[in-house]
Amino acid sequence: MNHSQLFESIRKKRSFLCVGLDSEIEKIPSFLLKEKDPVFEFNRRIIDATHKYAVAYKPNAAFYECHGATGWNTLEKTVKYIKDKKPGSFIIADAKRGDIGNTSKMYAKAFLENMPFDAITVAPYMGEDSVMPFLSYKNKWVVLLALTSNKGADDFQYHNEDGIKLFERVLSVSQKWGTTDNIMYVVGATRAEMLKEIRRIVPDHFLLVPGVGAQGGSLEEVSKYGMNSKCGLLVNSSRGIIFADSTENFDMVAGEKAHELQTEMEKYLSERNLI
Amino acid sequence: MNHSQLFESIRKKRSFLCVGLDSEIEKIPSFLLKEKDPVFEFNRRIIDATHKYAVAYKPNAAFYECHGATGWNTLEKTVKYIKDKKPGSFIIADAKRGDIGNTSKMYAKAFLENMPFDAITVAPYMGEDSVMPFLSYKNKWVVLLALTSNKGADDFQYHNEDGIKLFERVLSVSQKWGTTDNIMYVVGATRAEMLKEIRRIVPDHFLLVPGVGAQGGSLEEVSKYGMNSKCGLLVNSSRGIIFADSTENFDMVAGEKAHELQTEMEKYLSERNLI
Repeated sequence: MNHSQLFESIRKKRSFLCVGLDSEIEKIPSFLLKEKDPVFEFNRRIIDATHKYAVAYKPNAAFYECHGATGWNTLEKTVKYIKDKKPGSFIIADAKRGDIGNTSKMYAKAFLENMPFDAITVAPYMGEDSVMPFLSYKNKWVVLLALTSNKGADDFQYHNEDGIKLFERVLSVSQKWGTTDNIMYVVGATRAEMLKEIRRIVPDHFLLVPGVGAQGGSLEEVSKYGMNSKCGLLVNSSRGIIFADSTENFDMVAGEKAHELQTEMEKYLSERNLI
Repeated sequence: MNHSQLFESIRKKRSFLCVGLDSEIEKIPSFLLKEKDPVFEFNRRIIDATHKYAVAYKPNAAFYECHGATGWNTLEKTVKYIKDKKPGSFIIADAKRGDIGNTSKMYAKAFLENMPFDAITVAPYMGEDSVMPFLSYKNKWVVLLALTSNKGADDFQYHNEDGIKLFERVLSVSQKWGTTDNIMYVVGATRAEMLKEIRRIVPDHFLLVPGVGAQGGSLEEVSKYGMNSKCGLLVNSSRGIIFADSTENFDMVAGEKAHELQTEMEKYLSERNLI
């Protein structure tokens, strides 16, 4: 999927919502535990209930790896389910990988070749050759960490050389590694005030924005400062949607929560005359 | 395993060698492909042949993940084999993980709880709360990326605020998150000249040094600038040992290569009166 196709998908669904599948087994409704693969069953129902309102899904690798090979199978089944049953969805592996070239190549193979992910989150610390192997796949994306939503973002991401903060350097240097069709950036919603500055450096790139909801970020502010003429935003919500309810109706409630966010997103898209 | 126990192991084996199990299936001897689990069989023979000369093993997660659930099983079997059959070995998951707290907690569970790894490599970009969950396990270690061995290290790791480079800030800030008993740092052998400066910031911490061999780093220089009064070094070699030969004698040759490095290491340990 390229930049234009993603924008078309956003226009069609009147939404730039990404649903984060941080499907922690301790938090899924207990009645699902009798299923053979409870986490997959949980994901399947969440996906069925939310796909009308969401353009993207973002399984978080950690919540699958913690179950070993079984969890890896669940992850594979989940991605395949989205790809086969909800075509047109943009699927992001939230995996925060990145290593020397020959190793990144193997991570890229794991997520972009062996599984039908459209994108993978990558940590920038090791620089260009740690990112390039992920960019060698046609129509696949790197989602590079720039300014994250957590408190620890303050530790290093603002490290300032001659007025240029580290995350700004990540944005400006990494732009040259790819295009607006294969690189997007993680910018936390909890740092919405920084979006204005970030848009000066990357006016056209898509931004993946986590931190709305449980982490306290505001969708209104993110849209105000981050939206560009092709929307340019994927806003992620995980816990606020998938764990909104723990009864047998959890999927219906998740759908309602996704619908609420979609309705708000539609408003912002409409105000900018993008739909 | 704590800092003193690791030093004792180094004194006993007269070696600070870590063998990297970057066991790429395309590179293992072809006669092993008839085995049910060729990569495990390869690892098992490499471990058997090298454990007299090595204090640590470092499976590289990417080379297992690229085989999906099967690869994850191979990784689990490999770690368990080392733990059960070669007790006293220090086992590092080279996984370069790191994410917001609730996610890092799951990665920590995957590697430090569900598998008997002693340590895991972690990327520092997301700061303190992305690292702390890994430090909550007793007698387990974080190996934090500081100055890596690849070319891309130049892109961000030297970002300089008032004379303090990013990797130096990582070293000084992260020291406060743990102790010399649960944090060590990745410093590439290809940057041996930087070790002097690095030792000023972290005189007592262990350093995990990749890049000797295939990547061109010098063991002599690393030892000269990096060794401290408790050795303080684990020097990794992967391809130079495990892929030194591709015949039926590959394990014997790997053992010889490990022995060569151990002999050189013994010399440096002896020169410093550490053995």
